Amino acid sequence: MKLAQNNPTASILIIGNEILSGRTQDANVYYLSEQLSRMGINLQEARIIPDDESAIIRNVVDLSRRHSYLFTTGGIGSTHDDITASSIAKAFNLPLHSHPEALERLKVYYGDAMNEARSRMSLIPVGAKLIDNPVSSAPGFQIENVFVLAGIPLVMQAMFGTLLDRLSRGTPIRCLTVTCDVAESLISDHLSEIQKRHSHVDIGSYPHFREGTYGLSLVIRGTDEAHLEKATQEVLALIELFEGTPRIG
Amino acid sequence: MKLAQNNPTASILIIGNEILSGRTQDANVYYLSEQLSRMGINLQEARIIPDDESAIIRNVVDLSRRHSYLFTTGGIGSTHDDITASSIAKAFNLPLHSHPEALERLKVYYGDAMNEARSRMSLIPVGAKLIDNPVSSAPGFQIENVFVLAGIPLVMQAMFGTLLDRLSRGTPIRCLTVTCDVAESLISDHLSEIQKRHSHVDIGSYPHFREGTYGLSLVIRGTDEAHLEKATQEVLALIELFEGTPRIG
Repeated sequence: MKLAQNNPTASILIIGNEILSGRTQDANVYYLSEQLSRMGINLQEARIIPDDESAIIRNVVDLSRRHSYLFTTGGIGSTHDDITASSIAKAFNLPLHSHPEALERLKVYYGDAMNEARSRMSLIPVGAKLIDNPVSSAPGFQIENVFVLAGIPLVMQAMFGTLLDRLSRGTPIRCLTVTCDVAESLISDHLSEIQKRHSHVDIGSYPHFREGTYGLSLVIRGTDEAHLEKATQEVLALIELFEGTPRIG
Repeated sequence: MKLAQNNPTASILIIGNEILSGRTQDANVYYLSEQLSRMGINLQEARIIPDDESAIIRNVVDLSRRHSYLFTTGGIGSTHDDITASSIAKAFNLPLHSHPEALERLKVYYGDAMNEARSRMSLIPVGAKLIDNPVSSAPGFQIENVFVLAGIPLVMQAMFGTLLDRLSRGTPIRCLTVTCDVAESLISDHLSEIQKRHSHVDIGSYPHFREGTYGLSLVIRGTDEAHLEKATQEVLALIELFEGTPRIG
């Protein structure tokens, strides 16, 4: 069952060769997924693609049509490998222009050190709305339902913080985690019965391996407090039945 | 320019609500991207999707057609939310069956504690080849060019380790990183000139923010040692021109 089906939906597009080549571990999906979850926006998918014009265009067109919001990160700096703005302009069949206010902000920020490469960071698709960059001035932009953010996690997070008023919120999905040391496959059928009895919650089962021992996290998600509480009580009872010691959280 | 265009290509499909809901940070893309890179297999994209049958089918069909290999992680345990095997069987229009050897391995591993849920982990599409699980016995499987792996990083890594003989290798792309404290936008145009002069390498520019200060990593990638060395020398000279202190690595 899908929870909170009327919530706005979102997707994420991480643009960057450095993630695919194994050089850098992405941190942006994790941050955005947490933030969106709190706002009641259902993140439906995330993709990581190279700095490649045709890949950017194809994915922006596809994801922006299928979800309420698309957030992209990466590729909006001043170097030759920063092709996100021009590729997104092509995805929307719009020309690029130097946005006067973006240029002004860059001039103020760089002062005497302004140069041509820095002024290129004012190039955005005609009609796009700026997204403030409280860290290093070079703005991101919004075009229709696509939000184009920086790749550096700190800058991306600051930009996202300025966007909150532009996003519709849904019903946040609450989440309770019960951790224990019972083997998943010992209780799966019982767990499935609990899931069947509680169609208003979604029960996920995630074995893990920490500090040398296996454990199991059972995650009960739902929008209704009473349903959530009831299903969680049954999960706790199940673990005790199998002589496990459940911990909440 | 795309490096090592004749290399095999790959994509990754991370299957799991827990990643999209912000509960868990994915670690599998990072591990696989590093391993594939060393083997000369060009990772072209990675996607994170929910435990949803139609999403799994759509993405498996799409990605397996477009790349030499597709690696999936997650959703092959024993609980009601583990729907990867059955969804992939549908993607290939194949029935599921209990693979005799998989079942035997599970019986040996669980002994007297064998139960119905555990035996379900032997269900794989007819014709699929097992992927060994040296950690906890329940196997993954390969069907055509799709490799279906566990979601727990430790188990996934052990499974991947047993696969190496099944994968064709390409020319590994070597990578040199030059780190400095020069502002990216100060040197972008010069860097672009270096890139133009050296079409056999790919120069990426990645600003970062660590321990309170900005820095810049310039990543020079290529398959040919001599080209790589020459471009790197020019990058080092450029940084020194702008009074930066370059460090390799």
